[in-house]
Amino acid sequence: MTQRVVVAEKILKANDELAAENRARLEDAGVFSLNLMASPGAGKTSLVERTVAGLADQLRVAVIDGDLATSLDADRAAAAGARAVQINTNGQCHLDANMVGHGLDALDLSGVDLLIIENVGNLVCPVEFALGAHRNVLIASVPEGDDKPYKYPGSYRGMDVVVLNKIDLLPYVRFDVDRFRHGVEVLNPGVRILEVSCTTGAGLPAWLAWISEQAEAHRVSPDERRART
Amino acid sequence: MTQRVVVAEKILKANDELAAENRARLEDAGVFSLNLMASPGAGKTSLVERTVAGLADQLRVAVIDGDLATSLDADRAAAAGARAVQINTNGQCHLDANMVGHGLDALDLSGVDLLIIENVGNLVCPVEFALGAHRNVLIASVPEGDDKPYKYPGSYRGMDVVVLNKIDLLPYVRFDVDRFRHGVEVLNPGVRILEVSCTTGAGLPAWLAWISEQAEAHRVSPDERRART
Repeated sequence: MTQRVVVAEKILKANDELAAENRARLEDAGVFSLNLMASPGAGKTSLVERTVAGLADQLRVAVIDGDLATSLDADRAAAAGARAVQINTNGQCHLDANMVGHGLDALDLSGVDLLIIENVGNLVCPVEFALGAHRNVLIASVPEGDDKPYKYPGSYRGMDVVVLNKIDLLPYVRFDVDRFRHGVEVLNPGVRILEVSCTTGAGLPAWLAWISEQAEAHRVSPDERRART
Repeated sequence: MTQRVVVAEKILKANDELAAENRARLEDAGVFSLNLMASPGAGKTSLVERTVAGLADQLRVAVIDGDLATSLDADRAAAAGARAVQINTNGQCHLDANMVGHGLDALDLSGVDLLIIENVGNLVCPVEFALGAHRNVLIASVPEGDDKPYKYPGSYRGMDVVVLNKIDLLPYVRFDVDRFRHGVEVLNPGVRILEVSCTTGAGLPAWLAWISEQAEAHRVSPDERRART
């Protein structure tokens, strides 16, 4: 068992180095980036579609989609107007920095303002692997239940924002928003929780405004960028 | 990377041996067992509650609950009337046979007819680790979307039954039951798909009948069992 731990540490160290390389490439290209994580079916792809459409007049968006199989999600992102690349993880429960590096190879980043990395649907594994993205986003959804922060604490720590999706279903399922918010707050004090519905569009302006603010704060002039490097 | 694969194979081999030990212990005790797998929030614990209550006059049920943190699920199973043990996986995305062995140590199996093992909420990892259970059950849920068999094929192969939960939400979300069924059928031809709602109780009689049939078919007289060993 010791051997296993050592190997896992080596893999994570190599991953961190590759994540730093990805970050440098994104910085060089002036691209702001998000790592979207969630359970299967929480609405990552629907939020990507809404985001691409909602920011169309402000930011040019590219998407890297991670899934075990199919290109269904990248197809949806592309149909919404994004430059999109699908990565199939061959059974792995998460994207890693190496996969994202290959995704960057396949994308032309010139003219891209925002890169959204849509991780594999999983509340455990993705959070272990840095990808090089600037912000981490967790999407929870109402039908999953209000107990998820308590049962999957690792996924709520270290997030920069938590999106609670499918609030249109609140009338039809047992979900105590206060219990959910309290669970998140304990793990990640002060983190912003945005309640949205990708079906009705409720709450999406606040989400789009958050991205715009974050991307704007990150933006530097070409001169500043050159001076940094 | 080669080293990693070798280590992973060793772990899986050791797991298979421990799973065989678990199976032998269950056989010796005359216990029929299910391994319940699903995404986070698909309704595993709700189905456990409904099953314990629904079979109360036929089968004495014990539950082993796997979660990263808390004993919320085992508490619910116990409140429903089951003998219940919680296993916290310390960050692991699945139960393994060793953990279940410890769960069996903690349970008194005398007088138990049915053991339900509720795995960690995850559509990728649990299917890789045999636990020793007699039947594998996947619970899907309507709000997760009809594309899940296509995107998480590994979780649908090798299942003995697929339960589609939360059909009470069909009027409120986009979900094409035929597309879902087709996706499952391609991966697992002929597998039974049971549509249920743990909220309204719809479809649960068929689920309970399936368990009763399976447990009955598995039941052998003490003499037969002694003759086998």
